[in-house]
Amino acid sequence: MDDLNLIFNRKSIRHYQNGKEVGKDKLKLLIQAGMSAPSAVNICPWEFIAVTDAGLLDSLAERLPNASMLREAAAAIIVCGDPERDDSGIARKFWVQDCSAATENILLAAEALGLGAVWTGLYPDQERIGKIRPLLSLPERIIPLNVIPLGYPAEKILPKDKWEESRLHWEKW
Amino acid sequence: MDDLNLIFNRKSIRHYQNGKEVGKDKLKLLIQAGMSAPSAVNICPWEFIAVTDAGLLDSLAERLPNASMLREAAAAIIVCGDPERDDSGIARKFWVQDCSAATENILLAAEALGLGAVWTGLYPDQERIGKIRPLLSLPERIIPLNVIPLGYPAEKILPKDKWEESRLHWEKW
Repeated sequence: MDDLNLIFNRKSIRHYQNGKEVGKDKLKLLIQAGMSAPSAVNICPWEFIAVTDAGLLDSLAERLPNASMLREAAAAIIVCGDPERDDSGIARKFWVQDCSAATENILLAAEALGLGAVWTGLYPDQERIGKIRPLLSLPERIIPLNVIPLGYPAEKILPKDKWEESRLHWEKW
Repeated sequence: MDDLNLIFNRKSIRHYQNGKEVGKDKLKLLIQAGMSAPSAVNICPWEFIAVTDAGLLDSLAERLPNASMLREAAAAIIVCGDPERDDSGIARKFWVQDCSAATENILLAAEALGLGAVWTGLYPDQERIGKIRPLLSLPERIIPLNVIPLGYPAEKILPKDKWEESRLHWEKW
């Protein structure tokens, strides 16, 4: 049951302690958690960019109004997909699902490490994607799914209770 | 660190103990974990079907060759999306991402409860979706993303080590 609490305690943290860095060892651990996600036919069509450079975080914030908290963040992870990873078209069909599961793992791992994090969406918004592609030198075939700003929490919030009994259907609709 | 082990220990379990039921309380807990996932603009465009009826599990198995383990399963959860949940088109853009995060929460919660589970894909395969839609009486606007067979594990397997250092890029590509 303790393990379940990790899932129920996760929340979106948008304010971070000033000047408290997130070490590279922690960022690597978060991305290892991401790569532990399930993946269709185990193609694993994901790539991860870990950003700690303050100037780069500011530039990303400037171009992404929905991710302005990057200005306060100590780091960020950009979860990307590679839809052409395999020749059989599996990645093309399932990269969003695989990368979203990886993203949830990263958010839960951040909670486990006492970090604050929030999922800010990019794909399928082509304008947002186009704005950050040159900043990260992304190859044309790589699609950034989201940006996860990270830092030590500077706000204390409770997880949202999203339980809605009416969304659970027994046996059939 | 213990919390991280949940993420690193998750694996896909395809064989289940015969006759050992998964109680409705546990299924509800799994779906509560699903509904604790992050969701774009908190639209939560998800619906969950929990199946325990052996005849229905067999019928689903018959129509879904990639989910034949449903024959052994004690239960299944079908994670569905509702792309038309909101008027602003947010759900249409993000339902796959939201529902995939919810699915990963369910798989992790299953691991936490000592259950075995595996993600078997439906969307975007229209043939698979069409085959199970009538069995579950799904309304036209509801799209099943996947089927998660569930049961107490009848196999002992280690989690896959999917770590690939080359997929982690520091600062930029």
